[in-house]
Order: sequence, then structure tokens, then C-alpha cells
Amino acid sequence: MSTHEARLKALREQLRADRLDGFVVPLTDEHMSEYVGSYAQRLAWLTGFQGSAGAAVVLPEDAAIFTDGRYTLQVRDQVDGAFWSYQSVPETSVADWLKAHAPDGGRIGYDPWLHTRDWVGKARAALADRGAELVAVARNPIDAVWAERPAPSPARLEPHPDALAGKSSAAKRQEMADWLKAEGAEAAVLSALDSIAWTFNVRGRDVEHTPVALSFALVHDDGTADLFVEPEKLGDDVRQHLGNGVRVHDRAAFEGHLRALAGQTVAADPERAVAAIFDALDAAGAKVIARRDPAVLPKAIKNAVEIAGHKAAQARDGAALARFLHWLSVEAPKGGVDELSAAAKLQSFREAAGDLRDTSFDTISGAGPNGAIVHYRVTEATNRPLEMDSLYLVDSGGQYPDGTTDVTRTVAIGTPSAEMRDRFTRVLKGNIAIDTALFPAGTRGTQLDSFARQYLWQAGLDYAHGTGHGVGSFLSVHEGPQRISPAGSSQAGGDEPLRPGMILSNEPGYYKTGAWGIRIENLVLVVEREVEGAEKKLLGFETLTFAPIDRALIEPGLLTPAERAWLDAYHARVLEIVGPLLDGEARAWLDAACAPLEAA
Amino acid sequence: MSTHEARLKALREQLRADRLDGFVVPLTDEHMSEYVGSYAQRLAWLTGFQGSAGAAVVLPEDAAIFTDGRYTLQVRDQVDGAFWSYQSVPETSVADWLKAHAPDGGRIGYDPWLHTRDWVGKARAALADRGAELVAVARNPIDAVWAERPAPSPARLEPHPDALAGKSSAAKRQEMADWLKAEGAEAAVLSALDSIAWTFNVRGRDVEHTPVALSFALVHDDGTADLFVEPEKLGDDVRQHLGNGVRVHDRAAFEGHLRALAGQTVAADPERAVAAIFDALDAAGAKVIARRDPAVLPKAIKNAVEIAGHKAAQARDGAALARFLHWLSVEAPKGGVDELSAAAKLQSFREAAGDLRDTSFDTISGAGPNGAIVHYRVTEATNRPLEMDSLYLVDSGGQYPDGTTDVTRTVAIGTPSAEMRDRFTRVLKGNIAIDTALFPAGTRGTQLDSFARQYLWQAGLDYAHGTGHGVGSFLSVHEGPQRISPAGSSQAGGDEPLRPGMILSNEPGYYKTGAWGIRIENLVLVVEREVEGAEKKLLGFETLTFAPIDRALIEPGLLTPAERAWLDAYHARVLEIVGPLLDGEARAWLDAACAPLEAA
Repeated sequence: MSTHEARLKALREQLRADRLDGFVVPLTDEHMSEYVGSYAQRLAWLTGFQGSAGAAVVLPEDAAIFTDGRYTLQVRDQVDGAFWSYQSVPETSVADWLKAHAPDGGRIGYDPWLHTRDWVGKARAALADRGAELVAVARNPIDAVWAERPAPSPARLEPHPDALAGKSSAAKRQEMADWLKAEGAEAAVLSALDSIAWTFNVRGRDVEHTPVALSFALVHDDGTADLFVEPEKLGDDVRQHLGNGVRVHDRAAFEGHLRALAGQTVAADPERAVAAIFDALDAAGAKVIARRDPAVLPKAIKNAVEIAGHKAAQARDGAALARFLHWLSVEAPKGGVDELSAAAKLQSFREAAGDLRDTSFDTISGAGPNGAIVHYRVTEATNRPLEMDSLYLVDSGGQYPDGTTDVTRTVAIGTPSAEMRDRFTRVLKGNIAIDTALFPAGTRGTQLDSFARQYLWQAGLDYAHGTGHGVGSFLSVHEGPQRISPAGSSQAGGDEPLRPGMILSNEPGYYKTGAWGIRIENLVLVVEREVEGAEKKLLGFETLTFAPIDRALIEPGLLTPAERAWLDAYHARVLEIVGPLLDGEARAWLDAACAPLEAA
Repeated sequence: MSTHEARLKALREQLRADRLDGFVVPLTDEHMSEYVGSYAQRLAWLTGFQGSAGAAVVLPEDAAIFTDGRYTLQVRDQVDGAFWSYQSVPETSVADWLKAHAPDGGRIGYDPWLHTRDWVGKARAALADRGAELVAVARNPIDAVWAERPAPSPARLEPHPDALAGKSSAAKRQEMADWLKAEGAEAAVLSALDSIAWTFNVRGRDVEHTPVALSFALVHDDGTADLFVEPEKLGDDVRQHLGNGVRVHDRAAFEGHLRALAGQTVAADPERAVAAIFDALDAAGAKVIARRDPAVLPKAIKNAVEIAGHKAAQARDGAALARFLHWLSVEAPKGGVDELSAAAKLQSFREAAGDLRDTSFDTISGAGPNGAIVHYRVTEATNRPLEMDSLYLVDSGGQYPDGTTDVTRTVAIGTPSAEMRDRFTRVLKGNIAIDTALFPAGTRGTQLDSFARQYLWQAGLDYAHGTGHGVGSFLSVHEGPQRISPAGSSQAGGDEPLRPGMILSNEPGYYKTGAWGIRIENLVLVVEREVEGAEKKLLGFETLTFAPIDRALIEPGLLTPAERAWLDAYHARVLEIVGPLLDGEARAWLDAACAPLEAA
């Protein structure tokens, strides 16, 4: 019996013991995190699936795994079809499938610490059609049978100094207290890990790529707070940094504290707080008001200190990327560079640039056809050499104490084809259209998305992902609430009005399946713009990412004079910002790479 | 006591007799129509308000009238503030206001034939917060006290020949029957008047500007139907045209028929069918499935015969507009032309062009500052002369048996200022950007909206209305489901994917309050486009409206070479299509107005 077959069998036995007819296995944690610690990798443990998003349902006879279009091939490779049926979301939701497959009158378990109330309501309604019941479990049955389950990370917290945060935790909490009073509430629940890290100006190491610590918090209308985190994770430095206004408790004490909030009015975020939190507040007799986590918007709107820090981090990051691109220009044509060695080399340049704490996500290092896989993650098995006359796409970023970066460049190895140049130039024109857009205050990201696609559309082409996501300050590389995405997108955030201080990615692309992929990604900052005679407060973007854009891939005849001027001015800024950090051959290469297009 | 004070008093006495503590007065009819017959003008009768959208609530002591931003001034002019408080929607909804003002534990009446179930649910929930109750009335209390209330229009129906409809009613009903079977339903309710007119290929004269007849219908899964319409409105021609598959009943018999559908599965549209229809089906014990009215999408997707008819109507309409613009160019500079006389002259040209059944809406004839009022309706009191060195905006359309038109032109009287030329040219560039857009199948109108605004945004300007609405075939000039509108707009339809055969308006504008207004509106048809190498089914727009665009208002330096070429090609098409219908001085004027921009 294979490992995963045995695990599925063990789970089914546990379900029988727990008198359940099924169980739902999502891929998240108690904080609805996008990336989770190893202790919460229940889906991977049970099924073998290594993707970053998915879910499973186990019934006595059936078992199904749910993944989106990105993982259609991967799930078939990693998860045994003899025991699991493959389901595609959003075409078939977990609730839809349960409606069709749950035993009549059965009891289907779910872990209330791993689902929103909205999900519970929908799944419950779907099951009701079959007379089946959705049952909250007190203990996750996977944990009962997962013998070697890792303990949650013991990593210590560190202070995020006010000199980098730009505002003290006490000041942030006082603003939340003022908001609570205005809302007529006495406390707010914070359960999103980046919201807690931002609110208390602390960072952790419990989750790969995102410097957060496993914790919960309650902020009160007097500006004090309760922070629930394993005490051994706190050194004296952090305790002193937190100050007297923050009471520290065991993480396990959180639920009990919620149950003691009888009679209080408590704000909680239905999108970010799990069902168990609402259940505990209801059981306590608290009055719950559904409000967006009060850290979300101020965290997204970077202050002047965070913006200055971000720019300093971008300069170092840009220098590391430029050194890498120079190295690539020398080594790749010789042969012998592959996706893994290229990604490792890029990381070594970032480490050398100073202050790197982590990459901000797993580097996407895609040669040839692998560049066309939007969320490609290189492994020994998929590793490809960088070949002559091909494209290489590298999407990467760093976590620095002063800022989080995320940048994609596509490079021609050897001589690109006319088709590659045409597509690259259309993607570039879309990137420039976003970068140079002017729009009234109140405009949502969705209203800008088509600017990035228009030149591809004109050729009957498109890309199947959003144009931009928010980015944190030494926090999540995917940070809400804002997003640049098409109307009707399944990803939330496109309807959030853009505000000065928000950072977003600008990353149109084009992917020729089985052949090559193109993406050009810079981060941009929402800023106010002045125009004479303007009747509205006007916004635009300031470019934050500075690294050469491969001129060998540009078809100059497709650019307007204004676009050529943009490109030359952009490269002049790259030289100005990154140039002083390079020397020798790398600097000479950068000078050439940033020369005006006319001279190319 | 004034007329309206007496009416309010009479209504309050009636409410007392009906044991109600309040009543809600919307501006709609039993069909959720945008425009309603005089018999349904209860809001105007009660309050004096003449706008096209609004609502009122009457309580024993309070009374409030609810209008949107378009009518802020007008409502204060027409409705007596001594008896009515003015409320703005969407800031304050009727439900919000009731929540704040309804008497504790009171009974608030509503007419279930004039509200959707969704509205009833929201208002009921709002009232529940005060222990108050929302009560469906059996008879509208306004009708009880409205002594001179007009009877519903007795106008006769006329056949809409298959030669204009492009598909027989029997074929349309067979497609609905196939759809019903696929949905597992036995009948569908049609209550939207344009859906009924389209399904049965009949037209009426019961509502101003929209050729529909007061009626309801049930379509069955065998392709037969029940049509509920006053029998005296049907001549032999219509009865014969309807054929054996359509059973005709009194309109008053509709509710009784619904109550006899026990055990059937019936499709009804929650956005288009009023609460009373759902109530009757529930009372019958029918199983109701909520589905969009099955006529909505096929009605929006015009067939080849409808498209050909539309183009024929557009040619005649364009010739009438060209004659008018010629007349204006001669008469306006002499003085003596005003908004009313201009609108009357335009109508006389349309009547002379042949086959005009009605205007498709009240002509917006706005001189100078009146042009800046987006939904301006000229009256004797507001009538302004067309003055030298000003702008005149005229938005108008015709109802012809072969098509419905809607066109806006803005004309310089005398010499326009540089600001006028700048703004007009930015609006024109936005119009061209929509007209020439290419986009993949599946794109929604919302994704195109910003293309129309981008050149205004660049100058810090915008317009506070959508960019485009659907248009019917000898039916509603505002027809759903598609729309080109910004993300987050309160008007539905922007999320509807555009499909070949849909007709939309393309009408960006700019309004300088108190000074002048600009709008350029053409109708466009969604068509498939071929591009070599395209990976997606590609769509674009074919222009349908042909009338000169005033070159005196264009700043050529703001146009790209491609935009200048578009304008010249557009004017060449105007000459080709409209030119042959003109002669003499009008033709000479048109030749000059359509000359290439270079020669201007």
C-alpha cells in the first residue's frame, strides 16, 4: 500500500470513529493565510499535492481533489487517480460536489478554524438539499492520524523598528481605538497574520517568504491590546518593543478570551476571520459587527517612511537583478546555465546586495516552454537548460527589512524571432499604458486593467491572469485590498478604489503554450498628480522597480514616440538609481543595456 | 389648500381607513417599466414631481420624496418642501429612511405589483429593526383617492411583421420551450413589456416612446402561450398574426392563471417580475425557479433582418439629422432659434423622412448651460435661445418600424473657445477609442468603459454617466442586458459579456456646469473581427449612426494620425449613406461638412 493510500485509509477509519461520513480538507490555516506553515500542510500530507491552492473531500467510498486551471497537469502527476477524482474549480465547487456525492442524511465534518462562515453557510445549504448535515469538528481528524505532524514553528519574533514602520504600534492602535468608538464597538479581532505583524510592528519567521508569526490579537477601544502568541517566541527585545499597552497570552488562550467577551460589541472580518472565531463570539453572547479588519487599509496605504524604505530596498534589489542579467548575458550563450542554477545565482546576488531576509516567493525561473507556465516552480525533474534563440522568464523578489520586492524580466537568449519581438513589444506597451495612466480619485483597479491588455487584444491575444496585486512593506508579496484585474475576475480586490500610497505590481504578459512566455513586471506607487485645469483630484503611478528591459526584444516600429520616450527615460532612471551600485563589467553592461532605443 | 396638499391629506385619510401607518409610492408599473403610462403616474399625481425616476414615502406626520442627483434642483422646484422632505438616492434609500422614521411597531403598506421581491425583502428587514411591519395592500390606496385617474391606454396592438422581426413568434416560442425543457420547467412568466412585444412579434402604443402594449404572458414547454391583454385591443389582423398557439385572455385574468399553476415548475425573473407574481405562484404551490427572462438575451442579439432594418432606419434618421444640422447652420447665426423651436424642427425633419412612429425619448435640446444638464428636458420655462459663440447639444432618436435610433451631436454656434475645442476633441478621441476597440469574446462592457474616458482623465476631467446602453429593435431605446459602464456603477449590465449582434450606444461627454455641455453619441453593433494569428475569437464594433461631427469643434493637433483617418473615413461613409438622400443646399452643406479634416 502506498503512503498516500495508507493515509487515506487511516483518515477514513478516524472518520468512522468520529461518526462522520466525510471530511473537507482545505489548504489554509487558522488565519486564512495564502502561504501556510508545514504544520498546516494537511492537503499535501493526505494527497501528495504540492500546489499552492486546492482542497479535498473524503467520503467513505469517494474522494475528490479540487484544483484550479494552473494545476490541471500537476495534480494528475502528484495525486493518485486510483483513489482520488480530479475536480476543477471554479467549474465544480466543493459545495457543488458535496451536493452531488454526499450520502443522503450523512454527517460531513469540517474544521471551523479553517473555513469562513460564508463558506460554511454555502456548504451547509448545498448539503441540506440531500438532508445531509455539515458538522464542526472539535479536533481535526487529520491531526489525529498524522503521526509525524510538525509542530508549529518555534521561530522568535523580532521588532520591526518604528524607523522602518514610520508609525509606532501605539499610534496605530490608537487610530483603531478611535475607529472602534466611531463604530460603537469595544474591540476588534485581528486574525490575519500580516495585519497583526503590521499593527504591533513585529515580524516573524513562521511562514516561508512572509515574515509573520502565528498569532491572534484583540485591539480594544482604549488602544490597549491582547496578543496571543507562544510566549517562548518573545525575547526581551520584543517584549520591551511591545510595551505596557500589549498584554501577551498563550496562543491557545485566544478562544477562551473570545468566549469571555460577553456583552461586548466586537468587530470581526468575515473574509479574514474563520468561522470558529464567530462561533466563539456568538457563544459568548458578544454582539458581533462585520467590518473589514481595521489594519487592512492603513497597511495598504504606505506612509512616507515605508515608501522611502521601499525605494532603498528597490535600489539594492535592482542592482542584484542587474548583476544577474549581466552574468546571464555572458554565461547563457556559452551553454551550461539552467533554470535551477540561474535561480540560485540570482539569489546569491540578492544575498550579496545586503539585508536579504528571504525571497518574497519561490522564484519562477522558466526557460523556453516552462516560461509559458504562469505559476511555474522549477524542480530537479522539470529543470531545463537555457538554450540559444529562446526566451527566459524570471519572476522573483526579496524580503528586506525596508521593503518587499517583486519583479519579472524576460530575456532573449541568442536571437529572438519576429513573433517574440512583436509579442514582447505589445506586452511592454501595456505595461507603459498602466505606468503612465492618469485617473480620478475613486477609480478602481478594474477600471485600468484593459489598458494593459489593449495591444494584445488588437492581435487577438490576451493573458489569463490579473494585471496587478498589492504588495506589503516587509510583509506579504500579495497584499490586499487593492488589485488591478478584469471585471468578473474571481480574485477579490479589483473593486477597491486606488489611493495614494498603495503599491501595486504592473505585470502584463503573454504565454505561447509549449513554446515560451513573456511577462514584464514593475512595482508602482499610487501618487497624486497635478494637471492644470483639472476638476478632479487626479492620481497616477510612480515607477518603483528599476532594472533594464531587454531592448533586443523590442520592435521599435510598434512603439509610439511617447512610448519610446518613456522607455529611454526609464532606462536613464535605471542608470541613475542602480548604476552607482555597480562597477566594472557589470556597470559597462548596464550602460549599454540602458542606452536610448535610437542608439540600439 | 393646494392641489398636492389636498391629495396628500386624502391619501393619509385613506391610509387611516386602511389601517396603515404609511405607504411607499414608487415610479414604475406592474412590469417594472422605465417609462410608464399616465394611469401609473402615481408619484407625479401625489407630489407634482415630473422627473423620470423617484419614489415617495408617506407616514402620518412625515413625508419624503427620493430622487437621484439628476433631479436635485427640479424636485425642489416641483415638490412643496412644506409637506415633503427631500432625500437623495443612493445616499439614502427608501429602506434606510423607513428604518429611521417608521413608527415603532407600525404597519407600512406597499403595492406588491410595483416592487420586486428583492426590494420587499430589504425593506422588510429594515423595518424589522423597529418592530414595524411591511404589509402588501390588496388595492393601491392612491388609486382609491385619485378620482380622475386615467384608464390604462386602450390603444390597439399591431403586428410586427416577420419580415421586420426576422423570426416568427412560433420559432421564438419553440426556442423558449426547448430552454424550458432543458431547465426542467414547464412554463415561463413574461412580464417585461418589451419581452412580450418581442416574443409575440407585436407592438403597442400604451407607453410614450416605447411601442409596447400592457400585457403579461406565460410561455409553455410545448411552444404555446397565454397572452393576457385587454381583448378590445386586438383586431383581427393581430389575432391572425398571433395564430392558434396563443390563447388570449383578459389582462385581469393573469393573477388567477398564476394561482392555477399548482404543481408546475415555473421560471420567473426576480429582476423583472414583481413580488405579486412570485406571491401568486407560491400561493398556487408552483415550484418557482429564478431565471432571467428568456427573451432578454435573444432580444438583445439582433438577427440579420433586424440589423438590416436598423441600418435602413439609420440612413433615413441620419438624413433627417443632416437636414436639421444644415438648417441650424443657416438659421442659428441669424438668431431666433431656441431649444423648443430647434427640437420641433428636428422632429419635422424626422417625420418628413418617413415611417416615424414616435421619438424614441423626449429630445434633449440644450443650449449653453442647459447642455450641461445631462438629462435636460426643455420646457417653456427653461427654454433658451441659441446664442452666438455657444454650444448646442441635441440628443434625440426615432422609433421606426425597422429600428430604433439614438444620436447626440454637439454643434458650435458661432466661434467656439479653445477650451470647448479641447474638450470636444478629448470626447471625440474617447468615442473613437470605443468605436475601434478590439476585444476577445467574453469581454464585458465594463472592461471597455475606461477607453472612452482616458483622454478626459488625462486632463483631470470625467463625465458622471455610463458610456453606453443597449438599444432595441423598434422597442426600448434603453434595452438590457448589456451596458458599457464603469466598475462599481449603480446601473446593472456592465458585467454582461458583449456578443455579436448586440447594439449599444457609444456616448462619452463632458459637462461644464453652468456653461455648456458636450456629448458625441453613435450607435454601434458588436461584430466578429478577423485578425491574422488571433488565438481568441475577436470582437469589435461596426458604427451604425451616420451624421456629421462638427469639425469646427475639433482641435486637429490633439488627434493621432489614426484618429484623423478614422474621422475622414467616418465622414466619407456619412456622405455615402446619407448623401444620396439629400439634395440642393443641404447636400452641398453635407459635402462641405464631410470634407477631410486636412481640407478644413
